[in-house]
Amino acid sequence: MSIFKYKDKNVFYQLDGNKDNPKLLILNGIMMSTKSWQPFMETLTEHFHVLRVDFLDQGQSDKMTDNYKQDMQIDLLKALLDELKIKKINLVGISYGGEVALSFALKHQTYVQRLILFNSSAYTNPLLKDIGRSWIKAGQTRDGSLYYKTTIPIIYSPSYYEAKLEWMQKREEILTPIFSNPEFLDAMERLTLSAESFDVRDQLKDLDIHTLIITADEDFLTPRKEQEYLAKHIKNAHWMTIPGVGHASMYENPLLFTSLITGFFLVKQETYQI
Amino acid sequence: MSIFKYKDKNVFYQLDGNKDNPKLLILNGIMMSTKSWQPFMETLTEHFHVLRVDFLDQGQSDKMTDNYKQDMQIDLLKALLDELKIKKINLVGISYGGEVALSFALKHQTYVQRLILFNSSAYTNPLLKDIGRSWIKAGQTRDGSLYYKTTIPIIYSPSYYEAKLEWMQKREEILTPIFSNPEFLDAMERLTLSAESFDVRDQLKDLDIHTLIITADEDFLTPRKEQEYLAKHIKNAHWMTIPGVGHASMYENPLLFTSLITGFFLVKQETYQI
Amino acid sequence: MSIFKYKDKNVFYQLDGNKDNPKLLILNGIMMSTKSWQPFMETLTEHFHVLRVDFLDQGQSDKMTDNYKQDMQIDLLKALLDELKIKKINLVGISYGGEVALSFALKHQTYVQRLILFNSSAYTNPLLKDIGRSWIKAGQTRDGSLYYKTTIPIIYSPSYYEAKLEWMQKREEILTPIFSNPEFLDAMERLTLSAESFDVRDQLKDLDIHTLIITADEDFLTPRKEQEYLAKHIKNAHWMTIPGVGHASMYENPLLFTSLITGFFLVKQETYQI
Amino acid sequence: MSIFKYKDKNVFYQLDGNKDNPKLLILNGIMMSTKSWQPFMETLTEHFHVLRVDFLDQGQSDKMTDNYKQDMQIDLLKALLDELKIKKINLVGISYGGEVALSFALKHQTYVQRLILFNSSAYTNPLLKDIGRSWIKAGQTRDGSLYYKTTIPIIYSPSYYEAKLEWMQKREEILTPIFSNPEFLDAMERLTLSAESFDVRDQLKDLDIHTLIITADEDFLTPRKEQEYLAKHIKNAHWMTIPGVGHASMYENPLLFTSLITGFFLVKQETYQI
Repeated sequence: MSIFKYKDKNVFYQLDGNKDNPKLLILNGIMMSTKSWQPFMETLTEHFHVLRVDFLDQGQSDKMTDNYKQDMQIDLLKALLDELKIKKINLVGISYGGEVALSFALKHQTYVQRLILFNSSAYTNPLLKDIGRSWIKAGQTRDGSLYYKTTIPIIYSPSYYEAKLEWMQKREEILTPIFSNPEFLDAMERLTLSAESFDVRDQLKDLDIHTLIITADEDFLTPRKEQEYLAKHIKNAHWMTIPGVGHASMYENPLLFTSLITGFFLVKQETYQI
Repeated sequence: MSIFKYKDKNVFYQLDGNKDNPKLLILNGIMMSTKSWQPFMETLTEHFHVLRVDFLDQGQSDKMTDNYKQDMQIDLLKALLDELKIKKINLVGISYGGEVALSFALKHQTYVQRLILFNSSAYTNPLLKDIGRSWIKAGQTRDGSLYYKTTIPIIYSPSYYEAKLEWMQKREEILTPIFSNPEFLDAMERLTLSAESFDVRDQLKDLDIHTLIITADEDFLTPRKEQEYLAKHIKNAHWMTIPGVGHASMYENPLLFTSLITGFFLVKQETYQI
Repeated sequence: MSIFKYKDKNVFYQLDGNKDNPKLLILNGIMMSTKSWQPFMETLTEHFHVLRVDFLDQGQSDKMTDNYKQDMQIDLLKALLDELKIKKINLVGISYGGEVALSFALKHQTYVQRLILFNSSAYTNPLLKDIGRSWIKAGQTRDGSLYYKTTIPIIYSPSYYEAKLEWMQKREEILTPIFSNPEFLDAMERLTLSAESFDVRDQLKDLDIHTLIITADEDFLTPRKEQEYLAKHIKNAHWMTIPGVGHASMYENPLLFTSLITGFFLVKQETYQI
Repeated sequence: MSIFKYKDKNVFYQLDGNKDNPKLLILNGIMMSTKSWQPFMETLTEHFHVLRVDFLDQGQSDKMTDNYKQDMQIDLLKALLDELKIKKINLVGISYGGEVALSFALKHQTYVQRLILFNSSAYTNPLLKDIGRSWIKAGQTRDGSLYYKTTIPIIYSPSYYEAKLEWMQKREEILTPIFSNPEFLDAMERLTLSAESFDVRDQLKDLDIHTLIITADEDFLTPRKEQEYLAKHIKNAHWMTIPGVGHASMYENPLLFTSLITGFFLVKQETYQI
C-alpha cells in the first residue's frame, strides 16, 4: 500500500508490473477507484509498469472538505509523477478520468507519450452538468436506492443491462449501503462539482500527441458528438467507435478495452511509407 | 371543452379542424397533455380533423387512485373512438403515446389507416424500467427540483439543451412547483408503472399497416436500437432518423415533426410502378 | 408534349396537376428523364402543380455538341420559369438534380419557396469526379454491358439490389442497348463533365430557405458526410437519414419519397411557440 | 525469397521476425501482394513472427490458367502451414484476405488462435458480385486507365482521396501500365471470379474463436451491414468501427491498423472478473 502526501492530504496509489516496462497511468471514472482496475491488471502488467491512483475524494485517498476544481487532481498527478521520478507515461482515462487525462496532457505535454480517452469529452456541457446536479440532489436525500437508480442504469447499454440483470441486482445490493453513506455522497458531490467547469475546447489545437479516442455508441452521458469534437480538433487524433456498448465501456467489453490500450501504447512506429 | 365518461372517470379530449378532413389521433408522451400539442394545431388542422386526448392521470382527465396497466389507456381510446363514431384514424404517438399507439394498432388494427411512431420502442427494457424507477423515487421525495433534474435534461439533445438554455431555465421555474405537487407526482408514478410491462415484440409480425418509425439520433431513453427492432419486425415499416435531435423530437424540430405527419398521412398511394 | 426554346435548343418539359395548387419543380438525376417521375405523378399531382423538365442532353430535350457547365442547366430553368410566368416554386432534386436545385436556389433565391435535396452534395469531390471519369471511359468503349455494370449496381443499396434481383436483370436487358448508343453515351459524358466543377461550399451561408436534406445511409456516391456538410452550413437546414437505402432513394422507398415532398412543401408554418 | 510448391505451382511466401514470437499470418486483399505489407513490418515483427504469402495469381506466386474457387487459396494456406510445421496462428485478413481468413478459420479452427477481419463480409452479395463483374469487363478492354478509374477511387474515403490527391496521381501513373498488362488483368479476373461463390453465412455459428471485426465507416465495397452481420452471428465477436475511413483502411490509418493487430493478438486474458 503506497501513500503519497499531496499538500496535507494522503493520496493512495499503486504501482504494479515490471519497472522496466513502459509506464502506463490509468485514471478512474468518477465512481471508480484503483480497485476497479483489478480485473485488468493481469493483462496490463504483462506489458506495462502500471500506475493507478485514487483521486482525492475517491477510494482510499483522503476526503476533502471544501469544494475544488478538477485542476487540483491534475496538479496532484504532476506531483505524484515527480515524486516517483517518472518523466514519460502512456496515459489513459475514462469519463472523469479521461477529462483529467486530457487536461493533464494539455498542461504537461512533455510527460505524455500517447493518450487514450475512453468515453470522454472536451467540456462539461450544460446537459451533462444538469445530470450531475440530479446526482447531487439525489445524493443529498441520503437514499442509497434513489442514488443507485439515478446514477447507475444510465451508464450501461440497454442490451448489456438486460443481459447482466442478475449481476446488476447484486451490484445494487452491494452499492446501496455505500450510496447511503453521507461521507461517500459528499465526496461524490464534490467530485461532480469539480468537473462542472471543465472546458478545454480552446486548447485542443495545441495537443501534439497521438491520441486514441473511443466512442461507445450507446454512451448516453458522453455521446458520440463529444468525441467527434475531440477527433476533429486534435491534430493526431485516431477515432474508433464500439457499437452496442455504453458509458462503462471497459466493463462491457474488457477484451477490447485491454487490447486497445496494449496495442496503441506498444506500437512505436508513427510514420508509415505507404 | 369535451368530456367523455370512461367507466366512472372523466376523460378530457378535444376535436379540432374540419370534420371532413381525414382523422388524426395524436397521443401524448408521459409528461405531456393535450395542451402540449397546441403549437402544432394550426398546421395539423389544415389537413386533418385532429383528436387529442388526455390519458387518465394526465392533464385535465381524472386522476386514478390504484395502479393499472397501459392497456387501460388503449381500451379508453377504443371507447372514445366508438363514442365519436370514428371508424378509421391516422394514428401518431410519441414515447409513451407511441407505445399506446402501437398497442392500439395491434389490438384494433381495422381502426388504423396509418401509424407513426416517434421515439418509441417495442417493449420497456429493464434499463428503461429502472430509469422509470429513478423517476418514481425522485417523485416520492416531493422535491420538485430533484424531479426536474432527474427527468427533464435527459429528454433533450445536448446541443438543443445548450442552445435553449434560457428557455430551459424558464421551464424549470414553471415546472418545479408542478413537480412538487403530490397529486401530479402520484399520477406520474402510476403512469410510469403502467408502462413497465409493455411488451409487444411477439405481436409485431401481425401488424399490416404502413408504419413510419422515427429515430432521434440523440434519444437516450428510447435509443436507435429500439426503433431498429421495430423497423426489422414490422412488415410495412418505413424508418427514418433525425441527426442531432433528442427524445423530445417534436420540440427540437417542429417543422420536421409536422411535415412527417402531414406527408405520411396525406399520401394515399402505396404501390409504385418503378 | 411541351417544348421550350432555350437559345436554339428544344427543351422538353411537362406540367401536370391543378394549376391552382402550389408549384413543384422536380429535377432529374443524371441518368433520369421526365419519364422517370411517372410512378410518382399520381401522388404528387394530388397536392401540387408539377413541373418536370429534361435537362439538355437528357430524355426528349436536344442533345448538345460541345461541353458546358452545369450552370447552363440553371439558366435554362430560370428561362423556363420566366416563360411560364412562375414566380415561386417548391424545388426538389436528387443527385445531379439536387446539385442543380441547390445552385438554382443560391442564384435565384426569390423563386424558391422551399428546397428538398435528396442524395446531394455541396461540391463534386475528387473521388466522385474520378468515379465520373470511370463512367466516361466505360462509355467511350461503347460496350453497353460494361457501362451498365460500372454505373448501375453502385447506385443501389446491397439489400435492395439483392431483393430486386430479377427486376435488376430486366433493367439490365432494357438498358444495355441504350447504354451502347453512342449518342446517349456522348450526352452522358457531357452531363458528367458538366458537374465536375460544381462547388457551392462558399455560398451556402447565404441560403435563407428552409431546406430538407435527405441522406440515404447506403448511398456510396454521395455519402452521409456530403449532407452533413450541407446541414451544418445551411442556416435553416432540416436533416434526415434513411437507413438501409442507397443513392436511388426514390426507387428504394417511394412512399417515403412522396411523403417527404408532400409534407415538407405543404406545411406552411415556420415558427412554433414551444 | 521463399517458395513453396502447392500442387505444381510456386507459391511465394515470406517469414519475418523472431521465430519465438507468436505467429501472425496476414492475408492480402485482392490487388495486394506480400510487398504491400512492407510498411507495417517494422512494427509487426516487433511482437510477432510474421508470415506473408502471395495467393496464386497474386504478386510473385504463379499465375493460374483456369478458373478456381477461393477454397483453393484456403487449401494452399493449410498446406503451407503444415509444411512450415505451424500449428497455431493469429490470423488477420483484409477484404479478399479477410474472406479467406474467415473461411480458413471455419475449416481449420484448431489452427487459429484469434482472428481479425478488416473490411470483410460473410458472403459476396449480388451487388458486390456485379461490381466485380464491372472490374472484369473493364480489365478485358486492356485499358489500364479505365481499369484504374473503375477499381481504385472507390476503395478510399472521399476525404482521404482528396487529402492525398498528389499521391493518388502518382499511384495512377505507377499502376496504369500494370493495369494494362494482360497477364495481370487475367489473374485479377480469376481472383475476382474465385470470390463470387464465397458464402459462409450458415457456418458462422460454429466459429468459436475471439474475432475482432473492423468496419470502416466509409467502406463502399463491404459496408457496415456486412460486418454487422458477422458481429451478430459470431459468438465471440468484438466489433469496432473507424469513422471517416474507407475500404483500404490499413492505408488510411496505419497506426490504428497496427495497434489493433498488436493489441488484440497480444492480450491473452479472455475472462475478466468484473
